[in-house]
Amino acid sequence: MGATALALGASAFAQSTSPAPAPEATSASALQQVPGYYQQAIGTLRVTALFDGVVQLPRSQIQGLTPAAIDALLQRRYVPESPRGLQTAVNAYLVHIGGRRVLVDAGTADCFGPGLGQVIANLQAAGVSPAQVDDVLLTHAHPDHLCGVVGADGARAFPNATLWLDDTELRYWEGPEAEARTPQALRFVVGQARRALAPYQAAGRLRSFKPGDAGLPAGIQALASPGHTPGHTSYLIDGGDAQKLLVWGDVVHYHVVQFARPSASFEADVDRVRAIASRRQLLAQAARAGWWVAGAHLPFPGLGHVRAEGAAYAWVPAEFSPLPAARR
Amino acid sequence: MGATALALGASAFAQSTSPAPAPEATSASALQQVPGYYQQAIGTLRVTALFDGVVQLPRSQIQGLTPAAIDALLQRRYVPESPRGLQTAVNAYLVHIGGRRVLVDAGTADCFGPGLGQVIANLQAAGVSPAQVDDVLLTHAHPDHLCGVVGADGARAFPNATLWLDDTELRYWEGPEAEARTPQALRFVVGQARRALAPYQAAGRLRSFKPGDAGLPAGIQALASPGHTPGHTSYLIDGGDAQKLLVWGDVVHYHVVQFARPSASFEADVDRVRAIASRRQLLAQAARAGWWVAGAHLPFPGLGHVRAEGAAYAWVPAEFSPLPAARR
Repeated sequence: MGATALALGASAFAQSTSPAPAPEATSASALQQVPGYYQQAIGTLRVTALFDGVVQLPRSQIQGLTPAAIDALLQRRYVPESPRGLQTAVNAYLVHIGGRRVLVDAGTADCFGPGLGQVIANLQAAGVSPAQVDDVLLTHAHPDHLCGVVGADGARAFPNATLWLDDTELRYWEGPEAEARTPQALRFVVGQARRALAPYQAAGRLRSFKPGDAGLPAGIQALASPGHTPGHTSYLIDGGDAQKLLVWGDVVHYHVVQFARPSASFEADVDRVRAIASRRQLLAQAARAGWWVAGAHLPFPGLGHVRAEGAAYAWVPAEFSPLPAARR
Repeated sequence: MGATALALGASAFAQSTSPAPAPEATSASALQQVPGYYQQAIGTLRVTALFDGVVQLPRSQIQGLTPAAIDALLQRRYVPESPRGLQTAVNAYLVHIGGRRVLVDAGTADCFGPGLGQVIANLQAAGVSPAQVDDVLLTHAHPDHLCGVVGADGARAFPNATLWLDDTELRYWEGPEAEARTPQALRFVVGQARRALAPYQAAGRLRSFKPGDAGLPAGIQALASPGHTPGHTSYLIDGGDAQKLLVWGDVVHYHVVQFARPSASFEADVDRVRAIASRRQLLAQAARAGWWVAGAHLPFPGLGHVRAEGAAYAWVPAEFSPLPAARR
């Protein structure tokens, strides 16, 4: 997600995203949406998609296509849309791998307003407590991925976890460049990033890495996918049995547009040329290898595959499935 | 669904469809899939999709396409597949309309084995008790739509509901034709249908109707869509604000194949020519009018829209969304 989404203001999200009683609900318990988690077996991995909420991204923040081309792509695709923009999910992913519980990204907490910030509640609904999380891997340090690592009190929300961030990304947010390259009106995101990282740093729980480093939890490989931010990282997770999961973060923001036209950019990409190159590379790799993909801004649960379609791609969402029986 | 799916035998479903602890689950509570319901607002309607489970439909039961053409359509669409066939959902739908709770279809109960029959449990998970259901509308009288109207004791599972069935469909299953047109090995489905209907008939709670009759609950129109069975019926439900929902039953069984090639049939269709004509007509109407569609065998929750794509169609699944705030 880009920092510009924040310009909409926290209060803008509250009204349309809070679960609330429907007008016709007459039973004692108000109508509620199903809990926002979903379980997927991928080889030996057990992946839990976690819904944080939705934000609205305007059509006008799509770059590299004419408005008419954008409208044509969106026509009859039925993406929920309000005057503020196209509904866009915010997802995080818990991966059980080799006895560890690894969370990739952590949602918005209270950085985007009260309609979001549901990652921890949905983690608990799925039967996992924050104290059971061993590692939190960040794809990048934008607030909708990072704010969730701290609670409302500013303390670590995952008290037993190591927080992992790409070294380039860490230096970008710690140094002067983040402020220099973030528009003045959105510069508060720099402070949000630093405040979220600080308690992990103070506790000796923050670890940076370079793509190719062997230090990440076993079975997890960091793939540099810069552009949206300078150190944006995707994680390729090995489930055995030739099954791999690519948790790709913000490689795609507008799913109806960017699979069909990978050269379309999101206004908030720090470096659009590199973001396009990263997107093209990962789309091609995922389609060719048949990797599972988890996308932070694909419609929840955001799990599925990429299919080559002509010179471009299509998103193939996973089908809702029961869990496989235990293999004993 | 067709009666032929039953040939797989109840026991075949149990192993791969029962939620069960994953090998790596180490917490006290075993890993569980999210409850199988999903809420969707459509105009003033509140629709709850209810997951019954999955069955496996073999590629070989697709008619009207060469095996190579079928394989090409399925390639890289990642439909979960076992040696027994392609994973195919069984869904039912509860619609809150005008103060009534109307259930369209009722799942398999125990007719398809222990991995299915989850409609009532998921209805309860969504906060609705079977006694609160006012009407049960059947799209047709196959066991995966009808068995769920009775409990394991053979009594009405929805004690306060009226059961609605198209007159042609009722006469087909009550008369000699159902037995004559059902292969010997599958003829037990005729008994299943009669046993499910009987307690409602005995209680004066069974009502048949003809398409166009005004007797159905207000806001609901029956559209004849014969072919899969002689009296197969789809329901067009008016949500106001120009929002309509078509609950189309078994118009599509193989979603990857039949949107792209509507002339492909399911072996179990009683009259394939009429089934194709019904499918073409409803696909065209739904795409042109922009109706919401709910499909009994589309990937759960099976809610979305139909989009015209060249001379054929594409399925556009609904995006997971929070419920809208109450409009006061």
